[in-house]
Amino acid sequence: MSPGENGLFVSFEGGDGAGKSTQLGLLATWLEGAGHEVVRTREPGGTDLGRQLRAAVLHGEDVGPRTEALLYATDRAHHVDTVVRPALARGAVVLTDRYLDSSVAYQGDGRDLGAEEVERLSAWATQGLLPRLTVLLDLDPQVGLGRLTGAPDRLERAGLEFHARTRRAFLERARTGGDRWLVLDATRPTGELHEAVRARVAGLLGRVGVTR
Amino acid sequence: MSPGENGLFVSFEGGDGAGKSTQLGLLATWLEGAGHEVVRTREPGGTDLGRQLRAAVLHGEDVGPRTEALLYATDRAHHVDTVVRPALARGAVVLTDRYLDSSVAYQGDGRDLGAEEVERLSAWATQGLLPRLTVLLDLDPQVGLGRLTGAPDRLERAGLEFHARTRRAFLERARTGGDRWLVLDATRPTGELHEAVRARVAGLLGRVGVTR
Repeated sequence: MSPGENGLFVSFEGGDGAGKSTQLGLLATWLEGAGHEVVRTREPGGTDLGRQLRAAVLHGEDVGPRTEALLYATDRAHHVDTVVRPALARGAVVLTDRYLDSSVAYQGDGRDLGAEEVERLSAWATQGLLPRLTVLLDLDPQVGLGRLTGAPDRLERAGLEFHARTRRAFLERARTGGDRWLVLDATRPTGELHEAVRARVAGLLGRVGVTR
Repeated sequence: MSPGENGLFVSFEGGDGAGKSTQLGLLATWLEGAGHEVVRTREPGGTDLGRQLRAAVLHGEDVGPRTEALLYATDRAHHVDTVVRPALARGAVVLTDRYLDSSVAYQGDGRDLGAEEVERLSAWATQGLLPRLTVLLDLDPQVGLGRLTGAPDRLERAGLEFHARTRRAFLERARTGGDRWLVLDATRPTGELHEAVRARVAGLLGRVGVTR
């Protein structure tokens, strides 16, 4: 975080169905109850431009891996410029459902591009803005996708392998990424997970000076 | 050009009103008359996705310089993947109205970002694909913008200064860019300019082996 930014930036990462939006919502409610300004946001699609980019890809032609990585980086650059940095500058707590670690895990490790290249692209897009805390809700993709579709056995083997690679990429980033990361077993009860997140955030709020 | 690509890639660059589309059209007609397959294209907006990106920006929020550079790079990555490389691979002549030199001149020198950073981004997006020939139609921006609007004296001084910087950036790239560049004084008669372009292209077609 740059000098002069007094807020707290927290990202939630993990596969689909791991409970990111549930935990983000519980944390937001707790923070708001304690009197903090909370900005809940997401990537991709946390801005009007981002939603248009997303629609352009979802309803359009297939795109190659570089085009895809650039689309996410564009979304991220605009999201950071217009939502995240202004909120941090006024002292808010920003909670985002996915951030650059998703790009690195999904595009960098899961597909054709190298993790280092995707990370460099995101770092350029955001002028190096990283969350102070990244909560990784770690889950076996077979369980996570089953939660979403209700039919895990119908998933194709290739799809599961892709998600398993992505899970390993998240865990490896967390292992080597220092104290930015809080890795939680997403099969634990919702309330227990929330307590673990809250404890870590409470410690950070004391330190970054936005406790009221 | 990568091995196995037998086509010829030509870009037209210069300020608005310099006559890029006129010269591109004359060259295309001449090449088609000689039996070549010609693909006429443009940046930004040479693909469906590119047109959607352009619309998203034109009808949406203001964007910062990094977001803008990333939008152009996304457009370029997709354009190269789906239009330019496939055409070159089958031996066509690809004529594009603007390519990466416009990004470097407009975003890299004319505004906040460094030329080197913008060029690196484009090189990543395109996996380093450069035109074999870049025709720069060089023109005093006051003349060029006057051709478009009919009212050069109404242009704001700041606008002219921006375009003058961009012109200098194009000329400087051409000066240091080696034999890729053909710089022409755009105030010369249309037919003379076309002859100069045709002479250079004829030489290249002999060399790259697409003459029939």
